[in-house]
Amino acid sequence: MALIVQKFGGSSVANAQRVRNVASIITDTYKQGNDVVAVVSAQGDTTDDLIEKAAEINPKASKREMDSLLSAGEQMSSALLAMAIEAMGFPVVSLLGWQAGFRTDRHYGSARIKAIQPERLKAEIDKKKIVIVAGFQGLNSFDDITTLGRGGSDTSAVAIAAALHADRCQIFTDVEGVYTADPRKVEGARKLKEITYDEMLELATLGAQVLNNRSVEMAKKYNVEVEVLSSLKRVPGTIVKEAAKMEKMLVRGVTKDTDVARISIIGVPDIPGIAFKIFSKLAAMNMNVDIILQSVGRNNTKDIIFTVSKANGEAAVTALKESIDCLEGLDILCDTNVAKISVVGAGMETHPGTASKMFEALYENDINIQMISTSEIKISVLIDLASADRAVSAVHKAFFPVD
Amino acid sequence: MALIVQKFGGSSVANAQRVRNVASIITDTYKQGNDVVAVVSAQGDTTDDLIEKAAEINPKASKREMDSLLSAGEQMSSALLAMAIEAMGFPVVSLLGWQAGFRTDRHYGSARIKAIQPERLKAEIDKKKIVIVAGFQGLNSFDDITTLGRGGSDTSAVAIAAALHADRCQIFTDVEGVYTADPRKVEGARKLKEITYDEMLELATLGAQVLNNRSVEMAKKYNVEVEVLSSLKRVPGTIVKEAAKMEKMLVRGVTKDTDVARISIIGVPDIPGIAFKIFSKLAAMNMNVDIILQSVGRNNTKDIIFTVSKANGEAAVTALKESIDCLEGLDILCDTNVAKISVVGAGMETHPGTASKMFEALYENDINIQMISTSEIKISVLIDLASADRAVSAVHKAFFPVD
Repeated sequence: MALIVQKFGGSSVANAQRVRNVASIITDTYKQGNDVVAVVSAQGDTTDDLIEKAAEINPKASKREMDSLLSAGEQMSSALLAMAIEAMGFPVVSLLGWQAGFRTDRHYGSARIKAIQPERLKAEIDKKKIVIVAGFQGLNSFDDITTLGRGGSDTSAVAIAAALHADRCQIFTDVEGVYTADPRKVEGARKLKEITYDEMLELATLGAQVLNNRSVEMAKKYNVEVEVLSSLKRVPGTIVKEAAKMEKMLVRGVTKDTDVARISIIGVPDIPGIAFKIFSKLAAMNMNVDIILQSVGRNNTKDIIFTVSKANGEAAVTALKESIDCLEGLDILCDTNVAKISVVGAGMETHPGTASKMFEALYENDINIQMISTSEIKISVLIDLASADRAVSAVHKAFFPVD
Repeated sequence: MALIVQKFGGSSVANAQRVRNVASIITDTYKQGNDVVAVVSAQGDTTDDLIEKAAEINPKASKREMDSLLSAGEQMSSALLAMAIEAMGFPVVSLLGWQAGFRTDRHYGSARIKAIQPERLKAEIDKKKIVIVAGFQGLNSFDDITTLGRGGSDTSAVAIAAALHADRCQIFTDVEGVYTADPRKVEGARKLKEITYDEMLELATLGAQVLNNRSVEMAKKYNVEVEVLSSLKRVPGTIVKEAAKMEKMLVRGVTKDTDVARISIIGVPDIPGIAFKIFSKLAAMNMNVDIILQSVGRNNTKDIIFTVSKANGEAAVTALKESIDCLEGLDILCDTNVAKISVVGAGMETHPGTASKMFEALYENDINIQMISTSEIKISVLIDLASADRAVSAVHKAFFPVD
């Protein structure tokens, strides 16, 4: 007998039939002799509908009132899911975030969980009840409802699993698990049996949004074993756990990120502090800078090239032109016709051949590399947008030959 | 400067434009230098929509889960109303039932308020904030959400007014106040300036559903001055208060109730305990019996005639036939072609002419009286349904002559 935490997203409970499907997954787990706590998101488009309703009344509504409004979405879905389980004849109780003991900081709209007071949860489990928890929400020290921000229900589930020392945290989604590449686009893409927390974090950062990043960070911190799996097909998913427990594997996956703009500042005078001025300005504007490349230019100048998200591209150019004197008159260019291709895998840090294997695959397909960035478990290259899908397939084939 | 509690029903906040209208009523009251606490119901059809959604998933859902589901309706409307007030530039905060300190008993679906812990309410008022409270809901001793049953937001408002010793509790509706008769049907119907709690209770019982009965009982118990007024027209409404503070008036109003079935049991053997058996059976089935009449019949028998609501009529007949032996073979008839006409007024108890004035008006209009029932502040007669509107007009004209 084990304690299993399960999480179901909004599309998994979008209508009465899907609510019943989720109820049957939960009760099947319970029938196998497990204790079950299920965390649920708001149904389908509920959250977006509520945001629209609020915008009609007050486009600048306070985050406190928004949180009180939006948390009603999970309140409704958790009660409805409990009713579906009642209809199947199982003991069940739904709990709101504050009833389940979620205490957060004061940041309305994107609160962080400070603690879970698990007394009520434990008491209901001890009564052999299936417990349904409204995800995405908690209570701050003012006794006001807060929400955890987008994707917060994943974090709710992992936090409960950590607080209750659950045996596993299952995140049900509309995909069957984590793949070596996008299976709709890359021939031979395979579902991974397992993956490390760090690899999962890199994949999420690179645009493969299966799991919310904060939830993976929390799972890593509290060593919660997470399984990503489908709520529609009953097949094993991908398990996310710590590296020590896992078979070594060179590369876990190949990803593509097209939300990239490349900014080039050409002929920057070679005086001290110029890079500091550029990147502190961007930081002050809350812009995340990804790959940075500085090359020696002509006549005692240098070129500084970096990437930001597409939405920040033009704003970055304008801000740098206006605020930094010594860039006056220089060419500052923004190119959005680029894509970032990455290979991710904890194994590669001890295997120097990974980078050359990736570069070889691109070379053989005539794909030019504009920038390179590496970390312990990731190699990323910036290439022409038009070649992106071809690049992913070529690199994937190099690491995962089609049998 | 006064403390005013205001209550707005679901139709008053049914859409964004009406939410803004209510926000302007509240802020106008606040601008006049008053502290304001506003209690709000769920928007328009929200509650019915949620009930329907639940029925699709589980027609026999537990009341606990229904309460958690339905209370989301007021949670949404209270946040939206607060946002509308924010947009007008006023300090405001919305509170859920449990945040406003509502503690109830354990009866999910129709909980009774046991206490209001007013600390948070008082603290927000002290900060000069307009406070919006989600009506209809509270928290029981399990820390579970309960609802107060239909019309519960009226009770929420009166309870807050009592707990905070408010100067007035204003109940905003879609009518302008309490009238001497239905103004859409009776020529010369007048809006009452004031009415006693007891008169209001009789009117509500008789089908003039302006105020929820429990809220009037609570207002009487705690001596809360209630004003019933329109949320659409800004004119004075009707004030409900204790009799001692009020000018004497013979009759407050004339009402019609068509939700009546008359049950006649003809030729009941005249043996002791028969009436007890009949009415204890009906009480066990939770049927409210209104007027009861027992007449002497032929050959040592009697006729027992009484009224119940239309929905209970046939069920009462069936139950009595099946369960009481000595009624076997007797005619038990159910007539739903009847209506109850009543005059209500605290003044009539010291004025013996009221009944005769009523009967005279009916006689002059050839309307036959089938049954009569009187209380200290009410005289009711049962008549033929087809004559009901004509009867109300005739009786109204007798007490309130058209000038």
